[in-house]
Amino acid sequence: MPTLFTKIINREIPAEIIYEDSHVVAFKDIQPQAPVHVLIVPRQEVVSIAELPEEGDHRHLLNAAKKIAEQLGLSSFRLVINTGPDAGQTVFHLHMHLLGGDQLGHFGVPGFGES
Amino acid sequence: MPTLFTKIINREIPAEIIYEDSHVVAFKDIQPQAPVHVLIVPRQEVVSIAELPEEGDHRHLLNAAKKIAEQLGLSSFRLVINTGPDAGQTVFHLHMHLLGGDQLGHFGVPGFGES
Repeated sequence: MPTLFTKIINREIPAEIIYEDSHVVAFKDIQPQAPVHVLIVPRQEVVSIAELPEEGDHRHLLNAAKKIAEQLGLSSFRLVINTGPDAGQTVFHLHMHLLGGDQLGHFGVPGFGES
Repeated sequence: MPTLFTKIINREIPAEIIYEDSHVVAFKDIQPQAPVHVLIVPRQEVVSIAELPEEGDHRHLLNAAKKIAEQLGLSSFRLVINTGPDAGQTVFHLHMHLLGGDQLGHFGVPGFGES
């Protein structure tokens, strides 16, 4: 079953794509959690970090994040990869969130202090 | 100037190291923000994602995260890389946080909803 993200990558579902290369596609999150909230998705269908192939495309996630932050003029930003339902993963196609455009708070663990 | 993390990597400052390989060293955060809070640090002194060399060691960060999560028996976990002061970066040696051991909340942007 192709995921929602594969359908976006294949242009079967619309999204505001802001960056792509031969390894990844990046588009705006439709429910942004920060002024800037981009999802960076490998074209390769990998479920999560827990199922990451050792020799996969995943180096390109971080390279793409750097380029997108430059493109958007962000000097500060946060990259987040959630693995598993308890960490908030909702689409089971590996993706990295790029969050920025504001001062960012803690890491998202209720009951723990600011970072 | 070597960073705090380089001193930990060189065993000049003690830390509870839980994983290392030829590319990265991982140790427990001394101010944990979750029941499990590990820092994964490349041996290479890179300031941040914004200064990431295209052909650097950084693929190994994600491979190490996968292995550490397996080692700790975490089915759900969050990986976070902060870049710049406004995102909460406090040590200017690239590092990835691995957070887990509990249900994780939002992404850490005050005023925005749950993920």
